[in-house]
Amino acid sequence: MNILVVNDDSWSAKGIHELVKLMQQIGNVTVIAPETPQSGKSNAITVMQPITLRLVEKAENLAVYTTSGTPSDCIKLALEVVLKDQPVDLVVSGINHGSNAAVNVIYSGTIGACFVAAEHDIPAIGFSLNDHHSDADFSQMKPYILPLTEKLLQHPFPHGVCYNINAPQGEIRGVRFTRQCQGHWEKELKPYQYPNGETFYILTGNFVNHEPDAEDTDEWAMAHGYISVTPCALDTTCHQQLQNAALRTAVENNAL
Amino acid sequence: MNILVVNDDSWSAKGIHELVKLMQQIGNVTVIAPETPQSGKSNAITVMQPITLRLVEKAENLAVYTTSGTPSDCIKLALEVVLKDQPVDLVVSGINHGSNAAVNVIYSGTIGACFVAAEHDIPAIGFSLNDHHSDADFSQMKPYILPLTEKLLQHPFPHGVCYNINAPQGEIRGVRFTRQCQGHWEKELKPYQYPNGETFYILTGNFVNHEPDAEDTDEWAMAHGYISVTPCALDTTCHQQLQNAALRTAVENNAL
Repeated sequence: MNILVVNDDSWSAKGIHELVKLMQQIGNVTVIAPETPQSGKSNAITVMQPITLRLVEKAENLAVYTTSGTPSDCIKLALEVVLKDQPVDLVVSGINHGSNAAVNVIYSGTIGACFVAAEHDIPAIGFSLNDHHSDADFSQMKPYILPLTEKLLQHPFPHGVCYNINAPQGEIRGVRFTRQCQGHWEKELKPYQYPNGETFYILTGNFVNHEPDAEDTDEWAMAHGYISVTPCALDTTCHQQLQNAALRTAVENNAL
Repeated sequence: MNILVVNDDSWSAKGIHELVKLMQQIGNVTVIAPETPQSGKSNAITVMQPITLRLVEKAENLAVYTTSGTPSDCIKLALEVVLKDQPVDLVVSGINHGSNAAVNVIYSGTIGACFVAAEHDIPAIGFSLNDHHSDADFSQMKPYILPLTEKLLQHPFPHGVCYNINAPQGEIRGVRFTRQCQGHWEKELKPYQYPNGETFYILTGNFVNHEPDAEDTDEWAMAHGYISVTPCALDTTCHQQLQNAALRTAVENNAL
């Protein structure tokens, strides 16, 4: 099995090394990782700027490349340059230092890369631990990664579907198949002053859970000691809203 | 009505000026736009780096700010700094120079900003013209923008829902209420050489439509002279996959 490992925290992060060691047990591993941390890069791509690619490590069943590009660019580099002449059987992304549950998913470079893989019909799984520290302890989560990967690969990945897997800190009680929890971030911009007096802001914030009691969400699972496995869709269409006949009639009425 | 206008092409782009002129007819307009073009920034946010904010223009019903941040950051700056003490009734994003139909939506800074607004329960509509030139001709699209905005505002915006509106070039035959077309990009990385001989890549590519005959998609509408209006969801959960009972059983089986 040819396995592509990517992340958004760069090749210098602990999480990607943990993931590579696991994946080497089940396949030939190619790593393409950003040169520098790219947290919060979502599905950003590098437009009108050079994307570099450098081989930094080569061993029996491991090749490691770094790039100036984004996590999404890593997938494109794999498909069109590094692995263009061989099938990519699986993309794994992470292990991210920090949760990508709930609305975090839309800001996540880790899952952004998985969406690009899903665009190209390649099975993709993103792994995240709810601990953003550089020395995060992945030991509780690690035993679940290969079994979950193998279980997910035993079922078809429809076009545009990937998985967002998040683990809590500390002891893990099991795994839940979940949906994305509704919520929003607040108090996100902390003001600072430059030496010249001008204000700038640094991103921070608190997550506000809109449905803390709903037991089928990724946030609930994590808050109760479970790993959450959320299937994600590349299709952003709100199909429920699309079925609103009155809205359709209003929108399609041509009278200006 | 307090209207926030954002984009990803920066305040120097023609499209945002067209949108501001229209919105001034129906409300008080605040603009927060990136200082430099941010195409392809998706939902990227600025992490661990300063986000600046500068007032660059002030008139009777118009205030214009520019920022070092991303399109997503523009929404956060509006809610927490610029418009923190007043309701934001509507966010409009664009007019983007270039299509955000089909899978482009996941890479789009224009629609990324709308998703952030939807996270905060603010009605948001992204407008794009299928012409990436800086002198794109918005004249055919313009008459549709205020009527469509008013029609959409007459219906509830459920939590996490926003709209992605795309117009074709040339004569417009009407409007279609659509879903996101399935497809992927190919041949995306054009190789170049630095003077020192090292290779770099610049993003380019062709869109491959997986369902060119499906008449309910945004791509079909645009290809046939219609403006497409696609409702988009912040919820990335693939609910169809979530209903797969066999998959749920496999995932939740705790045996390691």
